[in-house]
Amino acid sequence: MLKRYFPILTWLPHYHRGLFSADLLAGLIVTVMVIPQSLAYALLAGLPAVVGLYASILPQLFYTLMGTSRTLAVGPVAIIALMTGAALSAVAEPGSAMYLEAALVLSLLSGLILVGMGIARMGFFSNFLSHPVISGFLTASGILIAASQLGSLLGIQSSGFTLVERVVTLAPNLMSINVFTVVIGVGTLLFLVGMRRFGKRAFAKIGVPAGLADLLTKAGPVFAVIVTTIVCWHWDLASQGVAVVGDVPGGLPAFSFPLSDITLWKALFIPALLISLVGFVESVSMGQMLAAKRRQRISPNQELVGLGAANLAAGVTSGMPVTGGLSRTVINFDAGAQTPAAGAFTALGIALVTLAFTGWLFYLPIATLSATITVSILTLVDIPMLLQTWRYSRSDFAAMALTIVLTLVEGVEAGIIGGVTLSLALFLYRTSRPHSALVGRVPDTEHFRNIQRHDVQAPKSAALLRIDESLYFANARYLEDTVYNLVASRPEIEHVVLICSAVNLIDASALESLDAINARLKDSNVKLHLSEVKGPVMDRLKQSDFLDALTGRVFLSTYTAWREFY
Amino acid sequence: MLKRYFPILTWLPHYHRGLFSADLLAGLIVTVMVIPQSLAYALLAGLPAVVGLYASILPQLFYTLMGTSRTLAVGPVAIIALMTGAALSAVAEPGSAMYLEAALVLSLLSGLILVGMGIARMGFFSNFLSHPVISGFLTASGILIAASQLGSLLGIQSSGFTLVERVVTLAPNLMSINVFTVVIGVGTLLFLVGMRRFGKRAFAKIGVPAGLADLLTKAGPVFAVIVTTIVCWHWDLASQGVAVVGDVPGGLPAFSFPLSDITLWKALFIPALLISLVGFVESVSMGQMLAAKRRQRISPNQELVGLGAANLAAGVTSGMPVTGGLSRTVINFDAGAQTPAAGAFTALGIALVTLAFTGWLFYLPIATLSATITVSILTLVDIPMLLQTWRYSRSDFAAMALTIVLTLVEGVEAGIIGGVTLSLALFLYRTSRPHSALVGRVPDTEHFRNIQRHDVQAPKSAALLRIDESLYFANARYLEDTVYNLVASRPEIEHVVLICSAVNLIDASALESLDAINARLKDSNVKLHLSEVKGPVMDRLKQSDFLDALTGRVFLSTYTAWREFY
Repeated sequence: MLKRYFPILTWLPHYHRGLFSADLLAGLIVTVMVIPQSLAYALLAGLPAVVGLYASILPQLFYTLMGTSRTLAVGPVAIIALMTGAALSAVAEPGSAMYLEAALVLSLLSGLILVGMGIARMGFFSNFLSHPVISGFLTASGILIAASQLGSLLGIQSSGFTLVERVVTLAPNLMSINVFTVVIGVGTLLFLVGMRRFGKRAFAKIGVPAGLADLLTKAGPVFAVIVTTIVCWHWDLASQGVAVVGDVPGGLPAFSFPLSDITLWKALFIPALLISLVGFVESVSMGQMLAAKRRQRISPNQELVGLGAANLAAGVTSGMPVTGGLSRTVINFDAGAQTPAAGAFTALGIALVTLAFTGWLFYLPIATLSATITVSILTLVDIPMLLQTWRYSRSDFAAMALTIVLTLVEGVEAGIIGGVTLSLALFLYRTSRPHSALVGRVPDTEHFRNIQRHDVQAPKSAALLRIDESLYFANARYLEDTVYNLVASRPEIEHVVLICSAVNLIDASALESLDAINARLKDSNVKLHLSEVKGPVMDRLKQSDFLDALTGRVFLSTYTAWREFY
Repeated sequence: MLKRYFPILTWLPHYHRGLFSADLLAGLIVTVMVIPQSLAYALLAGLPAVVGLYASILPQLFYTLMGTSRTLAVGPVAIIALMTGAALSAVAEPGSAMYLEAALVLSLLSGLILVGMGIARMGFFSNFLSHPVISGFLTASGILIAASQLGSLLGIQSSGFTLVERVVTLAPNLMSINVFTVVIGVGTLLFLVGMRRFGKRAFAKIGVPAGLADLLTKAGPVFAVIVTTIVCWHWDLASQGVAVVGDVPGGLPAFSFPLSDITLWKALFIPALLISLVGFVESVSMGQMLAAKRRQRISPNQELVGLGAANLAAGVTSGMPVTGGLSRTVINFDAGAQTPAAGAFTALGIALVTLAFTGWLFYLPIATLSATITVSILTLVDIPMLLQTWRYSRSDFAAMALTIVLTLVEGVEAGIIGGVTLSLALFLYRTSRPHSALVGRVPDTEHFRNIQRHDVQAPKSAALLRIDESLYFANARYLEDTVYNLVASRPEIEHVVLICSAVNLIDASALESLDAINARLKDSNVKLHLSEVKGPVMDRLKQSDFLDALTGRVFLSTYTAWREFY
C-alpha cells in the first residue's frame, strides 16, 4: 500500500553510486537548461518570473517521492501556462494580489482533482480527450502562444487570450516599436532557429563528439540568455526601453495557504479540471513513450497521484500549476537520468539559484525569453497532421478543426470542451446509425461476407443480416427500421438471422426493440433467429423472457444457420 | 414534395362515404370523451380550463393536414401539461397575463423546434431518450401528477412542481378540508376505478354487446362529469366551498402573436426542447404501434413536421403545447377512425362546444376533473418495469432510477436531462473498457470461441485476441494496455492476431494506438496481424500508412490465421 503511493520506496533501497553520479549530472544539466523556460512560462501565465522557479522546486520533489516515471521532469510548461493565464485573467486583474492568490487556488484545485482521480482510479477519464482534439489543441495553443510573444519581441504591449484580442491590442502600438528590443528578440529568435536546424551538424564538422554536440545545441537558450544579459547590462539597454526581468526577490518561497472565499474556488473549478486533464494527458503519454524506450512501465493512476501532489505543493509555495514538461523531460532523459533522484537534484539546484543568484537575472531581457518560448512552442504546430487526419477520417478532422478554431477564437477552454463534445457527439451519431450487411458464405469456407462486396452463396428464403454495432437505445429504432424495410422489400423471405458477432451489448431499449421485431415478424410469418451471440450478451438474454418468445433459434455459428437454410 | 409535407393529399382524393361515416362517428365520440380531460390538463398546467379546449381545435386540424398517422388524436396531454406548468411557473406568476403569454411562446418554440427537426430530418435525435429513461420519467410524472391532484380532491391548496414542494404546501392546509369536495372527488375516484376494473364485465352480464360495453366503460369520466355537475348545480355546492370551473368565456379563441422580448424566448428554449422531444417520442411510438396493427406506416420525420405545425397553431390561438395523446388516440382508434378526417370532426365538435355550450361547464367541480386525471395517470406508474429492468441490466436500472429520483426531487427537466446524461455516460464508459477474449477453434469447425468458456484448440505461439468493440479514442489506450499485458504475461507468444469481427470503426486515435502497438511488438520480436477486418474499416486503413508498417498480415478469416499458427 505504502509502496503503491510512494514508488520511491521501490527504487531508493537499491540506489547506488553509479546511479547517483548519472542522476547528479542530469540534474545539473536540467537545472541550467530550465531556468530560462521556467521564468518565461511564468510570464506567459501573467505571473512574476520568479513564480516559475518556485514551481520547479517543491513540486518536483513531491513528484520524486510519488511519481512512477523514472525520467519525467515536472515544472511549469507552455500549454498549462497559457491555460493558467486564461483562467486567472477571467477572475482577477493581472498583476493584482488577487491574481497571485487565484494562481495558488488553481494549483490546489488542480492538485485535489488529480489526487482524487488517482485514488478513485479514474485515469481512464483522460481517454476522452481524443488524439485529434489534443493535437488540434496543441497546434492552436502554439499559434496563440507565438502570437502572445509577438508584443514582447517587438517591445510593445498586447494582451488577451484569443487570437483576435491579441491582434486588436497589438495593432495600435505597432508604431512604438523599440529597436533595441527588436534586435535582441529577433536576433535571439534567428540564432535559436539556426541552432536547431544546423547546430548539430556544425558542431560535428568542427569535431565535437555527437553527445556533446547534441547537448551544446540544446544549450542554445542558455547561451542566448547569458549573452543578451551581458549585452543589456554592459550598454544599460534597460534605460533605452528594453524590458528586463528586473528585481527578483531572493530566498525560498514562503509557505502559504489561500483561504479564499468559495466563489473563487467555484469559478476556477472547470479551468482546473481542464488543466488537470490536459496536463495529465501530456505528461502520461510522454512518460509512457520514454518508459517504453527503456522497457519500463508507468502506472497512469499513480501518475495522477504524483502529479496531483506536485500541484498541491505548488499551491502552498507561491507556485503555479505544473505537469511533466516535454522539453525538460527530454533533456533529463538524454542527459542520462536513471531515477527520479535526478529530478530532486534539479529541484535542489533551482532552490540554490533562487536563494543566491536571482540578482544575476536583473538584466535578462524579456525579449530573449519570448524568443525561447516562440521557438520551442512552434514545434507544437503540426500542419501535416491536419492533412493526414483529413485524409483518414472526416469526422476526426471535424473535431480537430473545431478545436483549433474555437481555441483561437474563443480561448483554450472553449476549444477543449467544444472538441471533446463534438468527438463524443460524432461517435454517438455514428453508433446510432450502424452499418449492416446482408452476408453470404464464401464458397468452401465457413466464412461470411457482404453479398455486395464479395461473390458469395446466399440463401433465398433467409436473410443473413450482420449488424455492425452494439445494440443500444440510440440505434434500437434504427434496427427495427432496417429489419422491417428488409422484409418489406423481399417478400420471399421466411427467416431473418441476425448475426451478432459485432454485437457486444444489448441494452434494455434494444431488447424491447428485438421483442417488437420478433412479434411483428411473427405476424408476417417470418421467423427471427440469432447467430454468434457472444457469451456475455447471451448471459444477459437468459435473464429476460426474450428467448422464450423468440420464434426461431439461436445458432452457435452463422455456418450452422446457413446450412439450415441454403 | 407537396405530398410529402401534406400527407392529406395522398388520402383525401380516395375519400368516400364509407370512410366518412366511420370517421364522423369516431370524431363525435372523441369530442365527448376528451372535453373533461382537455379542461383538466389545462388546469394541471396552471392555465384557465378553456385553454385546453382551444388547444384541441386548430392544432388537431393542422395535424389532419400534415400528420402521417391515420388515427393519432392531438391535443393537451398529461405529461406535457405537467412539463408546461413547471416551465411556465419558472418564468411567470401563475394566473398572471405574463403566464398566459409564456404559454404561447412555449407552444411556438416547441412548434419551431419540431418543424425544424422534421425538415432537417433529425427524428433520430429522439432515439437518445432511452427506454428506461422514458419509462422512469413516465412513472415519476405519474406520481407527481397524482400528488398535484391531491389538493383539489380534498378541496385545499397546494403548489409546486416537485414532490417535496407539493407535500410541504399541502400539509399546513390539511385541517381545512372541504367535506363536499372530498365526497365528490373521492366518490368520482372510486367510481372511475370501479368502472375500469369491473365496468366491462358488469355491462356484459346485463347483456350489453362487447363493443358498446367497452365504449360505455370508457365514457365513465363523461358520466361522472354530468352527474357531479348536476349535483353541484342542484344543491348550489359552489356556495359551500366546492371549487367549480366557473365562468368560461364563450366563442372561438382570438388569433394572437406573442411578440415578447428575447429573454423570455431564451429562458423557455430548453423546456421547449424537452417538451418537444418527450411529446414526439410519446406520440410517435404510439403512432407506430397503432399503424403496425393495421399494417400501415408512419414517417417519423413528417410526424415532427405535423406535430410542429400543431404546436404553432396552438401558439397563435391562445393554446398550450400539444402532442398525440394516449387516451384520446386509443378512443379514436377503438371507435373506428379510418383517416385523419376523424380528428377534423373532433376539432369541429370541440369548436362547437366552445362557441355555444361553455355555460354548461360552470358548475363542473374541479374535484371531478382531478379524479379523472388521477385515475388515467396512475396507469403510467409501472413498478414491475423497474424490477424487470433491475433484473436485466444494472446500468439501465441506474439510468431509470436516477430519472425517477431527479424528476420527483428536482423536477421534470432535471429528471430527463439527468437520465439521458447518465445513459450516455454509462454507454461511453462501457465502450471505453471493451470486453476482449482470447479465442480458439471449436474442433472440426471454422468457428472460434473464448478459450475460457469453451473447449477449443488454441495455438501456442500465437494469441488470437478478439476485441469486442469499435476502436475509438475512448478505448484506444485500453487496447494498448490489453495487448501489452498479454504479451508481457506470455513470453512464448510470437504472433498477436487482432480479430476485428466486432470492430466497426477505427478512428484516428485508435490508428495511432495500433501504430504504437505494432512498433512496440516489433521491438519485442512479436508480429502483429489482423483478421476479419470489415469492408468499410479496411477501406479506411488503406487511406493510411498503417498497412505498410504492419509487421504481420491481414487475414481474411480467423481460420486462415489459425491454420498458419496451429
